[in-house]
Amino acid sequence: MSKVVTFGEIMLRLSTERFLRFSQARTFGATYGGGEFNVAVSLSNLGVETDFVTRLPNNEIGDTALQEINKLGVGNKHILRGGDRLGIYFLETGAGTRASNVVYDRAGSSMATITKDSFDWETIFEGASWFHWSGITPAISEQAALECLKAIKVAKQMGLTISTDLNYRSKLWKWGKEPKEVMPELLTYSHLILGDIDTAYFMLGENKVQPNYQDEKSLPLLYDKLFALCPDLKKVATTLRYSVSASHQRIGGLLYDGEQIFKAHIQEVTPVVDRVGSGDAFMGGLVFGLMDAPLDMQRAIDIAVASCCLKHTIYGDYNLVSLKDIERFMDGDQTGKVSR
Amino acid sequence: MSKVVTFGEIMLRLSTERFLRFSQARTFGATYGGGEFNVAVSLSNLGVETDFVTRLPNNEIGDTALQEINKLGVGNKHILRGGDRLGIYFLETGAGTRASNVVYDRAGSSMATITKDSFDWETIFEGASWFHWSGITPAISEQAALECLKAIKVAKQMGLTISTDLNYRSKLWKWGKEPKEVMPELLTYSHLILGDIDTAYFMLGENKVQPNYQDEKSLPLLYDKLFALCPDLKKVATTLRYSVSASHQRIGGLLYDGEQIFKAHIQEVTPVVDRVGSGDAFMGGLVFGLMDAPLDMQRAIDIAVASCCLKHTIYGDYNLVSLKDIERFMDGDQTGKVSR
Amino acid sequence: MSKVVTFGEIMLRLSTERFLRFSQARTFGATYGGGEFNVAVSLSNLGVETDFVTRLPNNEIGDTALQEINKLGVGNKHILRGGDRLGIYFLETGAGTRASNVVYDRAGSSMATITKDSFDWETIFEGASWFHWSGITPAISEQAALECLKAIKVAKQMGLTISTDLNYRSKLWKWGKEPKEVMPELLTYSHLILGDIDTAYFMLGENKVQPNYQDEKSLPLLYDKLFALCPDLKKVATTLRYSVSASHQRIGGLLYDGEQIFKAHIQEVTPVVDRVGSGDAFMGGLVFGLMDAPLDMQRAIDIAVASCCLKHTIYGDYNLVSLKDIERFMDGDQTGKVSR
Amino acid sequence: MSKVVTFGEIMLRLSTERFLRFSQARTFGATYGGGEFNVAVSLSNLGVETDFVTRLPNNEIGDTALQEINKLGVGNKHILRGGDRLGIYFLETGAGTRASNVVYDRAGSSMATITKDSFDWETIFEGASWFHWSGITPAISEQAALECLKAIKVAKQMGLTISTDLNYRSKLWKWGKEPKEVMPELLTYSHLILGDIDTAYFMLGENKVQPNYQDEKSLPLLYDKLFALCPDLKKVATTLRYSVSASHQRIGGLLYDGEQIFKAHIQEVTPVVDRVGSGDAFMGGLVFGLMDAPLDMQRAIDIAVASCCLKHTIYGDYNLVSLKDIERFMDGDQTGKVSR
Amino acid sequence: MSKVVTFGEIMLRLSTERFLRFSQARTFGATYGGGEFNVAVSLSNLGVETDFVTRLPNNEIGDTALQEINKLGVGNKHILRGGDRLGIYFLETGAGTRASNVVYDRAGSSMATITKDSFDWETIFEGASWFHWSGITPAISEQAALECLKAIKVAKQMGLTISTDLNYRSKLWKWGKEPKEVMPELLTYSHLILGDIDTAYFMLGENKVQPNYQDEKSLPLLYDKLFALCPDLKKVATTLRYSVSASHQRIGGLLYDGEQIFKAHIQEVTPVVDRVGSGDAFMGGLVFGLMDAPLDMQRAIDIAVASCCLKHTIYGDYNLVSLKDIERFMDGDQTGKVSR
Amino acid sequence: MSKVVTFGEIMLRLSTERFLRFSQARTFGATYGGGEFNVAVSLSNLGVETDFVTRLPNNEIGDTALQEINKLGVGNKHILRGGDRLGIYFLETGAGTRASNVVYDRAGSSMATITKDSFDWETIFEGASWFHWSGITPAISEQAALECLKAIKVAKQMGLTISTDLNYRSKLWKWGKEPKEVMPELLTYSHLILGDIDTAYFMLGENKVQPNYQDEKSLPLLYDKLFALCPDLKKVATTLRYSVSASHQRIGGLLYDGEQIFKAHIQEVTPVVDRVGSGDAFMGGLVFGLMDAPLDMQRAIDIAVASCCLKHTIYGDYNLVSLKDIERFMDGDQTGKVSR
Repeated sequence: MSKVVTFGEIMLRLSTERFLRFSQARTFGATYGGGEFNVAVSLSNLGVETDFVTRLPNNEIGDTALQEINKLGVGNKHILRGGDRLGIYFLETGAGTRASNVVYDRAGSSMATITKDSFDWETIFEGASWFHWSGITPAISEQAALECLKAIKVAKQMGLTISTDLNYRSKLWKWGKEPKEVMPELLTYSHLILGDIDTAYFMLGENKVQPNYQDEKSLPLLYDKLFALCPDLKKVATTLRYSVSASHQRIGGLLYDGEQIFKAHIQEVTPVVDRVGSGDAFMGGLVFGLMDAPLDMQRAIDIAVASCCLKHTIYGDYNLVSLKDIERFMDGDQTGKVSR
Repeated sequence: MSKVVTFGEIMLRLSTERFLRFSQARTFGATYGGGEFNVAVSLSNLGVETDFVTRLPNNEIGDTALQEINKLGVGNKHILRGGDRLGIYFLETGAGTRASNVVYDRAGSSMATITKDSFDWETIFEGASWFHWSGITPAISEQAALECLKAIKVAKQMGLTISTDLNYRSKLWKWGKEPKEVMPELLTYSHLILGDIDTAYFMLGENKVQPNYQDEKSLPLLYDKLFALCPDLKKVATTLRYSVSASHQRIGGLLYDGEQIFKAHIQEVTPVVDRVGSGDAFMGGLVFGLMDAPLDMQRAIDIAVASCCLKHTIYGDYNLVSLKDIERFMDGDQTGKVSR
Repeated sequence: MSKVVTFGEIMLRLSTERFLRFSQARTFGATYGGGEFNVAVSLSNLGVETDFVTRLPNNEIGDTALQEINKLGVGNKHILRGGDRLGIYFLETGAGTRASNVVYDRAGSSMATITKDSFDWETIFEGASWFHWSGITPAISEQAALECLKAIKVAKQMGLTISTDLNYRSKLWKWGKEPKEVMPELLTYSHLILGDIDTAYFMLGENKVQPNYQDEKSLPLLYDKLFALCPDLKKVATTLRYSVSASHQRIGGLLYDGEQIFKAHIQEVTPVVDRVGSGDAFMGGLVFGLMDAPLDMQRAIDIAVASCCLKHTIYGDYNLVSLKDIERFMDGDQTGKVSR
Repeated sequence: MSKVVTFGEIMLRLSTERFLRFSQARTFGATYGGGEFNVAVSLSNLGVETDFVTRLPNNEIGDTALQEINKLGVGNKHILRGGDRLGIYFLETGAGTRASNVVYDRAGSSMATITKDSFDWETIFEGASWFHWSGITPAISEQAALECLKAIKVAKQMGLTISTDLNYRSKLWKWGKEPKEVMPELLTYSHLILGDIDTAYFMLGENKVQPNYQDEKSLPLLYDKLFALCPDLKKVATTLRYSVSASHQRIGGLLYDGEQIFKAHIQEVTPVVDRVGSGDAFMGGLVFGLMDAPLDMQRAIDIAVASCCLKHTIYGDYNLVSLKDIERFMDGDQTGKVSR
Repeated sequence: MSKVVTFGEIMLRLSTERFLRFSQARTFGATYGGGEFNVAVSLSNLGVETDFVTRLPNNEIGDTALQEINKLGVGNKHILRGGDRLGIYFLETGAGTRASNVVYDRAGSSMATITKDSFDWETIFEGASWFHWSGITPAISEQAALECLKAIKVAKQMGLTISTDLNYRSKLWKWGKEPKEVMPELLTYSHLILGDIDTAYFMLGENKVQPNYQDEKSLPLLYDKLFALCPDLKKVATTLRYSVSASHQRIGGLLYDGEQIFKAHIQEVTPVVDRVGSGDAFMGGLVFGLMDAPLDMQRAIDIAVASCCLKHTIYGDYNLVSLKDIERFMDGDQTGKVSR
Repeated sequence: MSKVVTFGEIMLRLSTERFLRFSQARTFGATYGGGEFNVAVSLSNLGVETDFVTRLPNNEIGDTALQEINKLGVGNKHILRGGDRLGIYFLETGAGTRASNVVYDRAGSSMATITKDSFDWETIFEGASWFHWSGITPAISEQAALECLKAIKVAKQMGLTISTDLNYRSKLWKWGKEPKEVMPELLTYSHLILGDIDTAYFMLGENKVQPNYQDEKSLPLLYDKLFALCPDLKKVATTLRYSVSASHQRIGGLLYDGEQIFKAHIQEVTPVVDRVGSGDAFMGGLVFGLMDAPLDMQRAIDIAVASCCLKHTIYGDYNLVSLKDIERFMDGDQTGKVSR
């Protein structure tokens, strides 16, 4: 399989440990992650060559993020250095009836303050067959939104498959425009879109987001709208999440190819070690499945759901699972028997 | 809302970490707490002015407890210093089928050895409208029991609302008298009593405590007995707890105003991060609810149950939740969706 | 009760902490354990005199293992010192849908390289009434298998009761022979055998192991085969495990005395703190029960299951529970009420 | 003694643990501090009433900083809430031949983005007798510099004693003006200035900073310059630091009252647990000494040096020592004898 | 060598970690120790059979202390169980110019509340040749002092060698009598006394203790006084300690046999990992040396000093060094070369 | 600069934390390192392209080592996978008068059991200009020694510069031959040799190793011997180490080019955070210096000594310093001033 390029921000994540509240924390666990980077890590672990494009500050925190990218085997040769700071987010990991809480501290980050014409997309996309972006990047700043559009256009021109995760974040989008003013144009180039129904309608400017709500019956209507909007669109997928509590999720997924809906079984996920990035794990699994066996839609959605479920058991933003782990999960061995 | 005063002991709690048994522990987590202090913290977090009255030793351990009280915004200006030691309790946190275990080491504490006429209750209660005490204080020592009675009488005289948590602890009450010889007189002044059926009967000298047993049908009879005993009594509440395991509780609650029983929905609480102090969180929520909207009994019991449930997810003895956290819980958002 | 001798390997266990994957670990928790040693610890905690026979390297790691044995009150006076290294195993503790994973690093261990006639079994068994071994020891190396046979024969000759845990490990048995070439002869001396159906058939050379499968209906047939093979056999037991996930197990057990099957109730075990060694805890409880009240078969299997369940809540390989803990469990107090 | 007000920024400090380099850190120790806040903490520990004035973001990180201020007994009633973020600095603690390294991430902080006329200095200074500021505040942003000047002028008008720590930070002062364009005007109101010779000349626009250099002979000349510039100036002090390594400092100090130089003995400080904030500890000790016994200049400089030395042994930014600790140090008991 | 018996209290020690002050500690390191126990551990590590006599509470904290005693190979068969609590002491480990601080919390401990005739000293001393006690035991309570005297008398009668460490603790001795009223009688039976000059005079009622002062010239005079007081006295020893700081000690030692003073070289000890128990390590080394080669006084004092120096590098109260470690030290290999 | 290839073993290092002895450790810090790998890391941090050649087991521990290599930017494309296990070494970090201790557990490692003709050295050395090996590799096993010789010969043939660190380890060399039977032939191809005098004589079969001894006067004689033995030899270097204690080293170095000796200043290194790998850091600095400015011998030895000193302050086996860090050290800024 040829290379997948993803474009976005990688942040320093500072998370409270052992379910402490922010006011109790005397230490923070320090990891690195971000939606598009997490997808690249998932793919890299599954054996796909990847390149992650971003901008990192020229300081020791940026250096450390770069080492992390290296460690995970994700390509970094088109990463720019500059700007003032690495974006940060604080995570208070919830448990049971108490939800996790995120405090963003990413204003003025190196990625948010990229300058025009910094990235040479023609060179970046050389040898690549797939470009992935998500709705977080255009939410960061106007210039990030413009650069995202530029990347998409070059990708389209060079014939890459373009995938998109809608990824709405209510605490972002503060640079002056609403999602509905920006996202529709960006979306029109997509070949594959991942998004739940509310997020999708919200991005399109039609609806309010309601948490934990998956109106499966309305999905076909949404899917038709997306297909109508996006001339290149081939597939739409949705993660089905039924949250029992912060520690217990039920996870399934749908994949629609314009004709048929393929559905994965709902899986019980409890306890949740770390929920953040589970959507990115889904996306990474989906892209892998569609690259690996483009005609086997059922396998693709099954891999996506398996990846998503396993991610919930792994500390940090990105999914550290191999194809062997995923296949073992899909073969039904979720029994927790010790392998020895 | 005017000030709430609580009176009791604050202890150093030494808990094993990561579910280790005592014999495995090489470190202890060190926090501070005690029934009546925990109620004060709950109220302080909900915006109520509080004053906690106790006696702390004049050493560095006492100093540290005082800093903790400060940090949480609880009033300390009537705290006495003196005596030999801060009471300690060791906590082995259980999991699943193994219950938590407490080893008390509070004999001879500064609070147990208070001397007569140390506290000037007239001054302490100036500007306060509510006094809260629990069955732990009279269990510590004879002098603590006498001082508790004195405080109650002054509170009555000065027109404060008096609330009581029965709080029976089988490993205490070793100073010579049985609960039934002490508690009935103390209880007669109460306006609000919190207690489960067995504890209540036991404190009154009629019954043995049976663990994990909530005979809802007999509660009205008990409530009538309490109303008969206590001339000022306005309301009685009971926490309903159905323990599935050390890690899984089902929590509800009742509030009776002499005419009608108000009942909160049973909530699933799993996993349990820290069960200790969940009754105090219930009490704190109840007092807040009755102060905040005295006529809305249903809201009061709902806040109490929400507080109690959320406490189970928080490390340490006291509840670190805001009104916003509680309202979010009551609005049904227990889905564990990450707020971002 | 007179002394129980167990014979096997004790290893250094290096486990990732807080559910980290191997690639995330910057520290390993260091504990010591091994099937036969774990049984000795269980018995020692229940008040039985024990002696653990093994061989430890003459270095600081061997010294530390010896201190651990001392600490737990297990007899060590017949432990040999010598050889190159203490066997190691790495444990990645799973959670939810992700199974735990073991990487063995025990080749060339001091125990695997024992030399002929190192152990003087006549002396070792003086004053002992019971000998316990498991299928792990003959899997380590040819010499370990030979020494195990020798010990069994001397035990038989000296009139000890012999118990066996079949304990198949797919990642061991690499020294040249298959289980079926070795185990049947060893088993013929057993008075008590613990094993699930697949393991038993596999050891006997008839079947493949299928994970998480307990065909209760076929057990009587298996039991008859074992009774046919082993002339001294008095009892056979089986742990019933239904794995819901790595964090949730359902545990029961059967004990058959050649005439009647005694069955313990299935217990819910969630969350699982540490699953490793839960079979050894079952075995230890069973041996204790049969020594303590040989005629009360139901109590023996109940103790075994209670021990096994409680072990799942305890970090490390061996079970740190007292008879009081077990009796409390059997009395139905699994409610998680804090003891205070 | 009446109240001391300090004005400045409090930051979240994220420090690597156990001398790890940034690239090795998987956790950060989280504490809070800042030059002017640290002075307030020192004074509060020495029994002086204090008020710290700053602006904190309206998020959970700001709440936590506020709790820390509470805990330490520093007054907070004039703290504003608002703005986007709490400033952060990353600290890599050095050892031996490797220096500590700071990465600032405080751009756009709530304090840097204060708006005009937010603080009502007349009210803030009611009941206060002393105002302390440092060269860090005007380095943060233009508005912070303007507000600092405003505070100084009001303080002057209301008759407070004004103290200043020059506190040059080479990685700050990026908002457009040089120190020499801003500091001289601010300094003219000072009654007490703390600063080493290079910093002082640099702030005045005459010299370059040379690390680790204390030209004691030139100090009188500098002192004369400062007295010439500042009409209200009564005293100037200098910390003498001779760095042997990151782990070994030699600390002394001078205090000049316009007529005579008072000098404290040079003290050996090794090992250094945490050097950050040791200058603030010096300042806090000096202010305390001059408030407590205004005529005893020798005692004041001795307290300042003792405070500074002890701070090097304490984790975090601020000095946690009592007057008893300082007096014990000054009495010569630096022998490390265990107090028991 | 035959058995050494020691008699005293073992406490739970709760120490702050990484040089934190008490008010900063969120965890305490938990170890166990006490003067006379520490001597037994030293001897056990050096291959001497030992028995430690004390009283432990019948709770899980007492059980854990007992496991620790077991682990270290110290005999425990004469330990009584009973009483209310294990004594505790809190330790704030100092660094550099800040001394360590101890807060005792041992009032009402199981050892302090021993009852008359609990210990059967004739049985305890069977097979033993040496009895060691220290000045801490009679300081705990009147009954402990009486029991100590009783033990000493039985030891004398049964012909054991009796050694004493004067061990003055200013924060103890609160039960009503002064050291000088108690110690002289106890001391008269000693064959070997360890004590610095001030402590010795203080115990004898003649002097005040001055910290960190070793007037070597006056020692002969003191030694003569002790020989005059104690008819059985054969040897007196003194630890020479010159404290440079809490992290840097200079350690030497003297041994006097009534005729000649044997002196060990002064050793530089820096950094100090844990100073507590270094005197006990000295005592343990001295007893071992005198048992192992009674005529080689120089070797005995050299072993004592080597033990004491090495203890400063070891966390916890007792010395974990082998004879090989000590001999390597005495051979001059203090160079810190890695052994590999 | 063109690529440097190094060949050797990378091990899992398990080190006790906070100066604990092995018997106290409940966790081990897990890092990865080995002499030749450490040199590659040093060079990679200094901007030199590197390739590390080794063999890793096909398990998760091997995978993790590979990720670590990736993270550090060292080339891995010629690393083989296979064999049974990753070598391990246990490290007990000493302090002050107690030396560090290493327990090797590397027998049977994947590197020790490499098979003939596994490595294709012609391909490996393509594009490389320098080959580095050390005396550890031939000490591991006969096959490792043979492969090392083969690599050296191919390197010679292809015109690479060959550097050698003598690196004697007394606990290795157990495969049947003595160093003097193996090393001289290997050494004859060297262009650059690093070794202290005792090690050198020992490797040549003439002397015994004496710890901590640097007979500078005899070095010229040794150097002449090495030049006589090795026809291609251009330069010899020696690390001068004077160990004051495990926590305090004095470090210097010599470089001899056959004509002149260049000497670096002796530096005080205290405290020592982690001594292991400091020789490799010296070697890495030396190779860098000679590649970067081949004619500036003084700068090369200065860089080597600076690298070595800085390594002592860094946790783990390899040196995490940049050229900027080294130059800052060489510019004399060892003062420990915080950079901010």
